[in-house]
Amino acid sequence: MTRIVKNPNPTLADVGEQAVITAIVAHAPSTRNGDDAAVLDHAAPNSRTVITTDTLVEGRHFRRDWSHPAEIGRKAITQNFADVEAMGARPIAALLALSAPGDTPLEFVADLARGINERVTDYDAELVGGDVTDNDRITIAVTGIGQLGGSLPPLRLDQARPGQILVASGHIGYSAAGYALLKEFGRAGVPAEFDPMLRAHCSTILTPGRGFVARSAGVTAMTDNSDGLVHDLYVMAKKSAVTINLDSAALQPDDLLVRAAELVGADPWEFILSGGEDHTFIGTTFGPPPTGFVEIGTVVRHNSMGAVTLDRAAPPYTYGWESY
Amino acid sequence: MTRIVKNPNPTLADVGEQAVITAIVAHAPSTRNGDDAAVLDHAAPNSRTVITTDTLVEGRHFRRDWSHPAEIGRKAITQNFADVEAMGARPIAALLALSAPGDTPLEFVADLARGINERVTDYDAELVGGDVTDNDRITIAVTGIGQLGGSLPPLRLDQARPGQILVASGHIGYSAAGYALLKEFGRAGVPAEFDPMLRAHCSTILTPGRGFVARSAGVTAMTDNSDGLVHDLYVMAKKSAVTINLDSAALQPDDLLVRAAELVGADPWEFILSGGEDHTFIGTTFGPPPTGFVEIGTVVRHNSMGAVTLDRAAPPYTYGWESY
Repeated sequence: MTRIVKNPNPTLADVGEQAVITAIVAHAPSTRNGDDAAVLDHAAPNSRTVITTDTLVEGRHFRRDWSHPAEIGRKAITQNFADVEAMGARPIAALLALSAPGDTPLEFVADLARGINERVTDYDAELVGGDVTDNDRITIAVTGIGQLGGSLPPLRLDQARPGQILVASGHIGYSAAGYALLKEFGRAGVPAEFDPMLRAHCSTILTPGRGFVARSAGVTAMTDNSDGLVHDLYVMAKKSAVTINLDSAALQPDDLLVRAAELVGADPWEFILSGGEDHTFIGTTFGPPPTGFVEIGTVVRHNSMGAVTLDRAAPPYTYGWESY
Repeated sequence: MTRIVKNPNPTLADVGEQAVITAIVAHAPSTRNGDDAAVLDHAAPNSRTVITTDTLVEGRHFRRDWSHPAEIGRKAITQNFADVEAMGARPIAALLALSAPGDTPLEFVADLARGINERVTDYDAELVGGDVTDNDRITIAVTGIGQLGGSLPPLRLDQARPGQILVASGHIGYSAAGYALLKEFGRAGVPAEFDPMLRAHCSTILTPGRGFVARSAGVTAMTDNSDGLVHDLYVMAKKSAVTINLDSAALQPDDLLVRAAELVGADPWEFILSGGEDHTFIGTTFGPPPTGFVEIGTVVRHNSMGAVTLDRAAPPYTYGWESY
């Protein structure tokens, strides 16, 4: 069961499965890891468990010449924890099902685990377990686990109500702008001022706890902007049987987004309305916007203009991300 | 957002991501599915959550010419729920992170979901969510979630104690025999009498609830036979700082296993000691074997013969399954 490794930059095949797992655990340690399954205690007697899974595939969701492996690790955690937070819950743990070719450098996996650990630590969570498997393409399936305490209901997609305002946190369109810049210039060629967009795309920027804050502050329906703003709101509007109207004045692209769009010859509104992948939170509430959120629209009775409108008209961009 | 599908046997790329998800949910329905994340209530105020993940990759863990997609679905659930049960917990839910090439038939995914649903239903559990992604190879990452009620500790690998007996449930070596027969003869060429071995390999045969029974009956350490009996017991023995001695008389291959080994020119003891993938439960207890378990060895003080012995000598086969 021992292998002699002479390569100073060994691959997964050089070191074998156990050494890969050891490298992951060394960079993302947890006392709950190392058994057939991880056991999580519940913080409160009436807490509920919230679970979700999302996968990153090399060439589809990330490129190694664009993203550092630690960024990929942070993104894998953030997109899952965003789904946990979109229910109003607190992320507490993650699982990593990693499959990758044998010629993948061990250093890639170690850096990936380091990025994962940085992000779970931001959330006071842990990587509690996982699985390592041979595959043709690097495939990173993460499970996010959260706890929903108290007696308030979770923030469901079907809980938007006419008369509510639509609120959002974070920079909508930044990830899509980052992607467009990377496609045009490559990582090294993008001017430094656009770093916030590169980070939004490559590692996802979110302030932990916004979902928990939103639920406490009276938000009833919430989702994260993952597949495109209009696309994701369309799902919410349909499930809630309402029309959601976006206010263009509140969504105006900032100077940086305008400059990024000019540089790649795009319309900044396409980034905002169809870009997705920001994982910023979009919620509805009868109250004022919670801390960290701004008002970007209203919820009205379902009307003939459609499920999602921009200034009470059809939005210019409606498509969203779909695999296949 | 609508696509015209003319192909009577459409692929994932023909129908698009949303239709793939719809097909999965149609075959494996759950009222908890359909939001950013699934919310699970806890059965008892002091219950804990148990989570694990395991991945099946086409060509590595299954072949479509050997296994029906419904069998692959059952296997994906069973191997995860076995890890949940190996902690003494009750499986309650699963997540499916499926990535597959666009030319995969939609029918494959529908049948996979049907197999998943059959197996989660056996356990009174549900497929509560998932993710669908484009990939080069069919990659099935399942997360198993369970609940651990009551005040007894979970069944950890480090809880084997000298003076205990080693107990096991199920047919050890059957999956490995099934794999050897498939490699030799292909699915259609294996004589019908070996069906139990084909099923052990292609869809995994387990009686739900054995882990829960074991914990109630006084088992303190448990694992499932996934990577090879000696290999998995080695991990338990090392973590518990004991020697585990297997009793060859109790592990004798039955007639069917002997005949299978003869047919492929193998030693049945290799199937038993190194085969793995049966996901049968192996535990240690001071009490008599729980219902459904038989005694297969003893736990003694760590001694110079090694962590795992067979009749107090080195076992003839010690290797186990490793990716890479």
